[in-house]
Amino acid sequence: MYAPPILKLIDLFAKMPGVGRKSAVRLCFHVMSLPQKECEELIRAISDVKEKISLCETCQSFTDTQPCKICSDTRRSRKVICVVESPKDVSAMEKTHEFHGVYHVLHGVISPIDGVGPEDIKVKELLARVAGGEVEEVIMATNPTVEGEATALYLAKLLKPFDVKITRIAHGIPVGGDLEFTDEITLARAMDGRREITV
Amino acid sequence: MYAPPILKLIDLFAKMPGVGRKSAVRLCFHVMSLPQKECEELIRAISDVKEKISLCETCQSFTDTQPCKICSDTRRSRKVICVVESPKDVSAMEKTHEFHGVYHVLHGVISPIDGVGPEDIKVKELLARVAGGEVEEVIMATNPTVEGEATALYLAKLLKPFDVKITRIAHGIPVGGDLEFTDEITLARAMDGRREITV
Repeated sequence: MYAPPILKLIDLFAKMPGVGRKSAVRLCFHVMSLPQKECEELIRAISDVKEKISLCETCQSFTDTQPCKICSDTRRSRKVICVVESPKDVSAMEKTHEFHGVYHVLHGVISPIDGVGPEDIKVKELLARVAGGEVEEVIMATNPTVEGEATALYLAKLLKPFDVKITRIAHGIPVGGDLEFTDEITLARAMDGRREITV
Repeated sequence: MYAPPILKLIDLFAKMPGVGRKSAVRLCFHVMSLPQKECEELIRAISDVKEKISLCETCQSFTDTQPCKICSDTRRSRKVICVVESPKDVSAMEKTHEFHGVYHVLHGVISPIDGVGPEDIKVKELLARVAGGEVEEVIMATNPTVEGEATALYLAKLLKPFDVKITRIAHGIPVGGDLEFTDEITLARAMDGRREITV
């Protein structure tokens, strides 16, 4: 129905995460209706992220400086590394303003079913950092999915020979959540991770 | 939190229709994770739609040929013009395979509250076509919204001096719909537009 250049862009948009065919059509029509200047701005922004953004050679997160802002911040402790799946998780964690260590981004989780092995994610880079000797604690902050748990466990085993504390972030009922609507696995985890109230 | 080039692209994606902040972040990360070749393909596709696609000088729909494929199809009747709001509506109508006339895309509807007047949409182009003399019927297929109705009425009045039949597509209960869950305006329209069953 649409002309080939339109179809092509619709196809590319439809490949993006969370974009269905109808949204892709909408995005394509939006792009076509953009003034020339804004369209060039979009093209430049896309090529800029590819050109200017690379992986931080220390934590493997996306950065436009080397090392990244977090890794080069002297006020942050290099003794604690928080291991996350993706750069988005770094951003989520930073919003809490509670963590003052550094990060390590795996860029995925081990998932044999999807053909992702330890060599496909940033495991050896983490080992190299821990082997450096400065690290005292590694916090596994992968997602509480089957793959996230398995990856945390795998890394914990790998890091065992090094003299570091390995921890896992707590899972439980989200703040503001409701026991009634919490799934049983989360509830079991919440019970498991209960702490004494000191009054 | 993110580096400036990342923020810039997130901002641009967030301006797109139906893309919230979180989706924009996801799209941006998707673009960053694209292999260089696919990223170039995306950039080329975006610049292609801007370069190769223009408005058909007859029906005002998006096209890569002049006139567009529908307008240049000799099997289609130039006597019936179906007036729609956007090129997407042409595509939707074509899927029915029921209409064999030609289209006229308004690129919007008259909406004083949004500052859109008749001069902002393709009204004078429609008048010029009807004034050409070949047209026998103009079907108003704008959406059944307040603005769509008002635009249809406005165009009907404008076209009155010409010797053409002006019609409006029927509104009623969608096929497969349920009376119980149909809003009263649609139901009233459905009653209004009832037709005799000839047995």
